[in-house]
Amino acid sequence: MHEVIFYQEAFVSYLKQFTKKKEPSTLYDPINYILDLGGKRLRPILTLMAAEIFDVDYQKALGAALSIEVFHNFSLVHDDIMDEAPLRRGEKTVHEKWSINTGILSGDAMLILAYQLFENYDTHIFQSLAKLFSKTALEVCEGQQYDVDFETRNDVTIPEYLKMIEYKTAVLVGAAMQMGAIVAEASESCLKNIYEFGKNLGIAFQLQDDYLDAFGDPRTFGKQVGGDIIENKKTYLYIKTLEFSNDLDKESLVKLFSSHPNNPSNKIENVKQMFVSSGSAEATKKAIETYTNKAFSVLEELNISEEKKTLLKDFGMQLMNREV
Amino acid sequence: MHEVIFYQEAFVSYLKQFTKKKEPSTLYDPINYILDLGGKRLRPILTLMAAEIFDVDYQKALGAALSIEVFHNFSLVHDDIMDEAPLRRGEKTVHEKWSINTGILSGDAMLILAYQLFENYDTHIFQSLAKLFSKTALEVCEGQQYDVDFETRNDVTIPEYLKMIEYKTAVLVGAAMQMGAIVAEASESCLKNIYEFGKNLGIAFQLQDDYLDAFGDPRTFGKQVGGDIIENKKTYLYIKTLEFSNDLDKESLVKLFSSHPNNPSNKIENVKQMFVSSGSAEATKKAIETYTNKAFSVLEELNISEEKKTLLKDFGMQLMNREV
Repeated sequence: MHEVIFYQEAFVSYLKQFTKKKEPSTLYDPINYILDLGGKRLRPILTLMAAEIFDVDYQKALGAALSIEVFHNFSLVHDDIMDEAPLRRGEKTVHEKWSINTGILSGDAMLILAYQLFENYDTHIFQSLAKLFSKTALEVCEGQQYDVDFETRNDVTIPEYLKMIEYKTAVLVGAAMQMGAIVAEASESCLKNIYEFGKNLGIAFQLQDDYLDAFGDPRTFGKQVGGDIIENKKTYLYIKTLEFSNDLDKESLVKLFSSHPNNPSNKIENVKQMFVSSGSAEATKKAIETYTNKAFSVLEELNISEEKKTLLKDFGMQLMNREV
Repeated sequence: MHEVIFYQEAFVSYLKQFTKKKEPSTLYDPINYILDLGGKRLRPILTLMAAEIFDVDYQKALGAALSIEVFHNFSLVHDDIMDEAPLRRGEKTVHEKWSINTGILSGDAMLILAYQLFENYDTHIFQSLAKLFSKTALEVCEGQQYDVDFETRNDVTIPEYLKMIEYKTAVLVGAAMQMGAIVAEASESCLKNIYEFGKNLGIAFQLQDDYLDAFGDPRTFGKQVGGDIIENKKTYLYIKTLEFSNDLDKESLVKLFSSHPNNPSNKIENVKQMFVSSGSAEATKKAIETYTNKAFSVLEELNISEEKKTLLKDFGMQLMNREV
């Protein structure tokens, strides 16, 4: 096993070979642009790590890791169109830099390219990877659709919200790790456990993202603190506050979450107070802990060395503390 | 072998099982809507026919045939967004009936579903189908991109145009037939020949579409005759006319093709006259014949009964006369 930074560098240099000039450039330039924008490359790193955990050289997993990253960026390109987002990683989004049509078509091509990246694997591994990929990709679409549907609903429950973030975010983390295990031809039970580890860590990560969006340190969070509140996003914090509130408080929170003040600082302060006083902030922290522990307890089932378990736990903790 | 209508009905009843209610309905209803809109189901019929030509029951090819149809409809949904088309088969397009975001996301899900439809096949057949599918789907994206690029170019050559229609339209016809042959585990040379048959027939079909758009019978063509001229579409007829014209005629055609008159009948008449007098109409008819003959001559290489060859030729002729 290597340090995280080693896998990251290995992945980025592999990626560089992929984002070469191809024709028609009007289709491929936007693909290379978004893939070269950077990011932490967390998902492909997890694929490479998983391969080595199950005793195969990370190089064998580079194709699968790249597929995961290409798919992730495909979903960013199409989601950014749907969200009308102007910026991604501080640079123009694809549809902003080119056009919506370019974003649609280049995104489509990325989804296909992600499948093609499995073609260098043996027949059985190819089939396992492609099946897992299709199942996961479809869940990501469903998760995105639930997220859209929730925007216009006022009765979203906590189980519904958890299913949405599981599909939209967490299954891809699980799949990224399982792909490394598939490439390493690990046992069925190892495949299942490493997937569950990644999925639960993914849920914890997303819940923490919700929490930090309100209570994070502006110097380290990376995004605008209070952003979800400004956009009236129904996060775990919001839904849990509604659940814990009496009718009067409920009404005033719903009202706050239909307003768009020019200066949002009062709104942010009021909402955060309700998140805390209702007990929702505490409940969210508890849920993050629960899913993190769930991930770690699955690790115990895995038939791998203690050293490797510690490594996975450390990486999980790093992820949760956002140092990666 | 059966009659074409038999394969069509068998396919449609198989499709009916697929378009059942699934959750989230906001994602799957638009998918079922576009798939249920009808159409001639030419591509899946070709898959089923190809399977039986290579001596396997058409039922074994239903999954692959459905994949081809789902992919074809995915491309219609995304293309209709890009073309801002309000109608498809006389009904509202998906993005018109729901929204652009719905069109994007439901289309994405269709592309994934198309891959999933290969999962019931044995490992080796699965891999062959998925590889052919990825190659073809990527070419369709590239063809669509070339088509977009050509809109703003005035120097498109005949070879470039032919490559564009090959990618955008013809390779999917070739792939539809090759998938039937893959399912039937036909020999490498059979796979190659049936693909070439379908591809060349597809090119002939698209060229005839260009021709009929100007010179077709309004009672049987199905689309508005003169539609391409109204929209200044650079078809084979147009490019060939430019090629055959002197500078003066060239200039007047380019000028006509930058105009958008309220009453287009004069423009249509003038352009059609130039298509004829330049020799382009005749050259287009010749090209259609050449590609049809190319398709039929590939048939001769195939090691199948004369009866089956006749059947394929008849279907090809029917396609070219638009009776199917």
